[in-house]
Amino acid sequence: MNARVFVGERRAEAIAADDRGLAYGDGLFETMRAHRGGVPWWDAHWTRLAKGAARLRLALPDRNFVRSQAAALLEGADAGVLKLIVTRGSGGRGYSPPMDAEPSWILSLHPLPSSPMQGLTLRWCATRLAIQPALAGLKHCNRLEQVLARAEWQDDAAADRDADEGLMLDTEGHAVSATAANVFALIDGRWATPRLDRCGVAGICRDWALSDLRAEEIRLLPAQLESAETIFLCNAVRGILTVARLGERAWAPHPQVSALRGRLAAAAPMFADPQRGILA
Amino acid sequence: MNARVFVGERRAEAIAADDRGLAYGDGLFETMRAHRGGVPWWDAHWTRLAKGAARLRLALPDRNFVRSQAAALLEGADAGVLKLIVTRGSGGRGYSPPMDAEPSWILSLHPLPSSPMQGLTLRWCATRLAIQPALAGLKHCNRLEQVLARAEWQDDAAADRDADEGLMLDTEGHAVSATAANVFALIDGRWATPRLDRCGVAGICRDWALSDLRAEEIRLLPAQLESAETIFLCNAVRGILTVARLGERAWAPHPQVSALRGRLAAAAPMFADPQRGILA
Repeated sequence: MNARVFVGERRAEAIAADDRGLAYGDGLFETMRAHRGGVPWWDAHWTRLAKGAARLRLALPDRNFVRSQAAALLEGADAGVLKLIVTRGSGGRGYSPPMDAEPSWILSLHPLPSSPMQGLTLRWCATRLAIQPALAGLKHCNRLEQVLARAEWQDDAAADRDADEGLMLDTEGHAVSATAANVFALIDGRWATPRLDRCGVAGICRDWALSDLRAEEIRLLPAQLESAETIFLCNAVRGILTVARLGERAWAPHPQVSALRGRLAAAAPMFADPQRGILA
Repeated sequence: MNARVFVGERRAEAIAADDRGLAYGDGLFETMRAHRGGVPWWDAHWTRLAKGAARLRLALPDRNFVRSQAAALLEGADAGVLKLIVTRGSGGRGYSPPMDAEPSWILSLHPLPSSPMQGLTLRWCATRLAIQPALAGLKHCNRLEQVLARAEWQDDAAADRDADEGLMLDTEGHAVSATAANVFALIDGRWATPRLDRCGVAGICRDWALSDLRAEEIRLLPAQLESAETIFLCNAVRGILTVARLGERAWAPHPQVSALRGRLAAAAPMFADPQRGILA
């Protein structure tokens, strides 16, 4: 991994042992698709980060400085995933957030995940998402629920260990998202996606799709997803992901998803995947 | 802060930038009272840590090695707080927990908090605890709820900024704990403390008090706390903490709490505070 650590506007050797990100997950992150040395959706990612920082009352480093450091890290990279973690910085023992701490932040560059050659196979996770309006929508660093959910099907013993992603319900039984992607469903001719006012992460690609599809944000039951005309997943690294199967339910490729992928590729050429024809 | 970082059984310069503790709060911690160069409640802390590690399927470093390193750090220290953080270690991008990662861990030594000269003043926090049975009871590193709750009254502008601690409800309205302590209440002549099967941290001193008082674990409503004959807080660093006030409600020192503090001091001399007479 190619990573650089900073405190405020100073490059640092490493994250301090008393960093609040490490102690409490007291931070936020963004996972961004890099393309031809830049981050086409930079503004949307920074806007979400700033909203999260306002909610957590956490200081952000200077936006232009972060962007210039990102550009330096991305130099020569044609495609990849740029991850930014921002924490509240160093602090004493105890939950009380330091009011004057400089944020710590890490930029790291990772390879693009491989493109799936066919529609995804999904499963239902047993791990639920807790209902916490104070943190809902944010891409914060308290992610044990996702870690537990993802671990469910990575054992050799897991019957569905070849599943590509898992869908999660909240503790009241509504479908919320995949572990690392949002979900949309075509129901009675209209697009819908779960409301994220109580849990879940408000994805950048979800925003794009919401607007493009004029989709509705609803409380979505698992049975509605399973009986939908089609469903897809999306995130800012992989774009729109066709779904072929969810448990027992199978879907053929759907022309509306194919058309959506085409519109996304036109709006954001980084998602113009040569394998798109196979998937759509 | 006096801190030492390790990976498995090797001393490390620092926590790696790709540590899962930093990325996802994917870790556990213990906050222990050190006394005369040792940690009298070490066994209880390690037992809780091991339970948490089993639930999260996270590898622990060798117990004896950690203990010997703790002893080295505590050498010459008469009293203090020893904090141990254990994370899942380094991992790639993505929630999938690495199956073969060596745990990272940090030992740090901090000064004892000052003993309150009188009973504590408590407030109610607006931030709620989410209901998440999969993580309930564990002292894991996803602590944004506590950070948000503690921040509520640290502003200069906060009307109750002199409060000593804040009590938290879960999202269904039951009282659970203070931000960094458990709570007990004397109701109709019997001791009770909130059940922690859906959220909250099962404290080491809570275990001691549960057993000593033969207290009941119940779903506790805020009104029951406010109308209790007396209440107290407890944690493994500060022992039993007398409460004088909760919002509008005031309590005089209660002989049963005074007697409990005496029994704790007898069982664990580190809690034999010279100011006990004042508090009880």
